[in-house]
Amino acid sequence: MQQSIERMTIRSDEDKKTLISRLNRIEGQIRGVANMVNEDRYCDDILIQLSAVDKSIKSLANLLLEKHMKSCVKERLNDGDDTILEEIVDLFKRFQ
Amino acid sequence: MQQSIERMTIRSDEDKKTLISRLNRIEGQIRGVANMVNEDRYCDDILIQLSAVDKSIKSLANLLLEKHMKSCVKERLNDGDDTILEEIVDLFKRFQ
Amino acid sequence: MQQSIERMTIRSDEDKKTLISRLNRIEGQIRGVANMVNEDRYCDDILIQLSAVDKSIKSLANLLLEKHMKSCVKERLNDGDDTILEEIVDLFKRFQ
Amino acid sequence: MQQSIERMTIRSDEDKKTLISRLNRIEGQIRGVANMVNEDRYCDDILIQLSAVDKSIKSLANLLLEKHMKSCVKERLNDGDDTILEEIVDLFKRFQ
Repeated sequence: MQQSIERMTIRSDEDKKTLISRLNRIEGQIRGVANMVNEDRYCDDILIQLSAVDKSIKSLANLLLEKHMKSCVKERLNDGDDTILEEIVDLFKRFQ
Repeated sequence: MQQSIERMTIRSDEDKKTLISRLNRIEGQIRGVANMVNEDRYCDDILIQLSAVDKSIKSLANLLLEKHMKSCVKERLNDGDDTILEEIVDLFKRFQ
Repeated sequence: MQQSIERMTIRSDEDKKTLISRLNRIEGQIRGVANMVNEDRYCDDILIQLSAVDKSIKSLANLLLEKHMKSCVKERLNDGDDTILEEIVDLFKRFQ
Repeated sequence: MQQSIERMTIRSDEDKKTLISRLNRIEGQIRGVANMVNEDRYCDDILIQLSAVDKSIKSLANLLLEKHMKSCVKERLNDGDDTILEEIVDLFKRFQ
């Protein structure tokens, strides 16, 4: 996992609550899939459910990107730090 | 969630173990992302980690599809049940 | 480009006509994008149009896969040739 | 096709040449796929070639986005126009 230790994004309690609740829901979906495997459920049903998890993750990524754009990206460009534009292009490729 | 109650896929203990261990790892990744949110980690790092979760889910879907192909799909086609071919095309679209 | 010289898929005139007309439409979309570039059109509009081309290509791939499933895949499985199942899993990964 | 008539992106001759040459190559790939259809080539080979076209389009989209970021996006944010951030999030979703 790549990381930039120095950089932080301070989040409001409300933002944290929203994000954590979305992540808890995805964790629940994953546990649901594990139950389906244990109960010998039909592969196709499990794959359909996995595609739903995939959509939840992409939807959360979109939410995070939106928040990122309106806070960090704007601030850093104002500070004259253009490397953030390359970070966005890189994210674009990762989720393509 | 769509499901076909009547249909089952009986899995060997080994297959179940492999699938459940992959799902547990993904659950761990999701909890890792939640920790990053709580620790005010930089958005871009969280998004990179989310793209890794996305790749894990797709890789698990590929494994499941492979097993599905070699068991259910072959059997049902042998039984003259062609609807399974439409199921595969539908999965193809869901993960595209 | 990978190819298997020996293998062919004989298509009806109607099937060819449908596929070629879809491909001509995509070619037209690409030329439309080239015109937008030459006319100094706004990047975002060009990117939106490129995403439409992407959707046309995926939609054509879905149509081809459906035809492939109902002809080649069924026949080869009937002939006891299981390698086709691996081909489908490989396609699944390529379009993911 | 959505468009914003008023907005333009003035491109250098070199930039236009690069983009047009990439688009010509994609057009050639599409014509190659049409030939494969006419020559009754095996479906799987055609689908593999279509996945290559898909990759070429995404790669061109990445190049365009990079140029967009370093010109239009920076300028418009400097001008205090934040709607461009929403445009980027929208593109992110379209290519996901």
